[in-house]
Amino acid sequence: MNGSLVVAGLGPGDQALVTPEVSAALAAATDVVGYLPYVARVAPREGVTLHASDNRAELERANQALKLAAAGRHVVVVSSGDPGVFAMASAVFEALEHQPEWQALDIRVLPGITAMLAAAARAGAPLGHDFCAINLSDNLKPWALVERRLRLAAEADFAMAFYNPRSIARPHQFARALEILREACGRDRLMTFARAVTTPEETIETLTLAEARPEMADMRTVVLVGNSATRRVGRHVYTPRHAD
Amino acid sequence: MNGSLVVAGLGPGDQALVTPEVSAALAAATDVVGYLPYVARVAPREGVTLHASDNRAELERANQALKLAAAGRHVVVVSSGDPGVFAMASAVFEALEHQPEWQALDIRVLPGITAMLAAAARAGAPLGHDFCAINLSDNLKPWALVERRLRLAAEADFAMAFYNPRSIARPHQFARALEILREACGRDRLMTFARAVTTPEETIETLTLAEARPEMADMRTVVLVGNSATRRVGRHVYTPRHAD
Repeated sequence: MNGSLVVAGLGPGDQALVTPEVSAALAAATDVVGYLPYVARVAPREGVTLHASDNRAELERANQALKLAAAGRHVVVVSSGDPGVFAMASAVFEALEHQPEWQALDIRVLPGITAMLAAAARAGAPLGHDFCAINLSDNLKPWALVERRLRLAAEADFAMAFYNPRSIARPHQFARALEILREACGRDRLMTFARAVTTPEETIETLTLAEARPEMADMRTVVLVGNSATRRVGRHVYTPRHAD
Repeated sequence: MNGSLVVAGLGPGDQALVTPEVSAALAAATDVVGYLPYVARVAPREGVTLHASDNRAELERANQALKLAAAGRHVVVVSSGDPGVFAMASAVFEALEHQPEWQALDIRVLPGITAMLAAAARAGAPLGHDFCAINLSDNLKPWALVERRLRLAAEADFAMAFYNPRSIARPHQFARALEILREACGRDRLMTFARAVTTPEETIETLTLAEARPEMADMRTVVLVGNSATRRVGRHVYTPRHAD
């Protein structure tokens, strides 16, 4: 098997946040595999086949990519953000677990700028102390586990970043998450809604938990919640490096 | 005040992980401010003054950078990794809090590839589900808070990433952290020691908590701990996207 598979992070949207390492991998690829809007970010060129697929087909997409690599192709699976953060890398290894004959393949993961860090940078430094990242979708875990993690994260006084906070299919859960956070963190806790970060549609809004409304978030939003010391300074919000 | 201040992340070491956005900011700078080994990564050129300073001088460095920007210079503060993750962004906003007259300055934070995500990519996808990031140094917080966060993170079944796990000045705390984790997570839990990730001195080792030894970590190491479902697949380690 002389093929290879690279799982590459395209960052949150702006081409200026794609690392040279990822650009080089795309330039060397024979095949690019991914969710349609991410594949659309790769410039077509002679010698590369673009394979775009639908959302929620992560495991099929991973199998398709591994099959191509096993057939000798040089495949890049594109993810938005960082492939290791709620993205394609884990799905590729899950597929690999079911197909041990592919485990000898040359497989590499190339990191990218994940949405929470791009969002934090735009807002200031709200993740400037210990923090956690939680996927609020219950597609792959029970909602009770999400609630439990929110409560424990608040008890640990972590700053928090939420991916996939709200979708059309599950509009009510984010409202419940906000309720839990108001109980656990108080109404004055600062949070930031960062939508479509680094794209032309970007909006960044920092407000308190009391002011937050569920409909401020959708699937293109990353939500950041400060810890008990997070504060505003000028136009920015930041979490101090020190804690008592 | 026509100056500007950019806080830029240089990534973990490899130049191929510096974003084009950060390269452009460095090309436009009149002054580059930072800890000596990070400033050493910036190529000197005509028209730019490099200001390298010692470690543990974050706040002075931030003040120096803000003062230069207030005097009309175009300043880039360089951080390794991502400036918002246990790095310079928070220190800059702390300095700004004490000098309200500088709050009108043009200040931007540019994200970078943070060490835990570069380390995770090298190892596979150990942070492929909900996770937390904890700075194990007690320079800026009481050690009791670190212990508390470790226990709550284990209770939440977060995968974990530890920055600054161990230094010459505090050799015993990481041993204590490993003890707490063995109690809370069991001896079979997988973890990864990633040292000097993406540099020529890189070493990546995945083993169990039972096999882990405190001296495997130093200040150039990022330590990743899996959650209860983290497993090996071939040469890699990954955390499944789903949970019960």
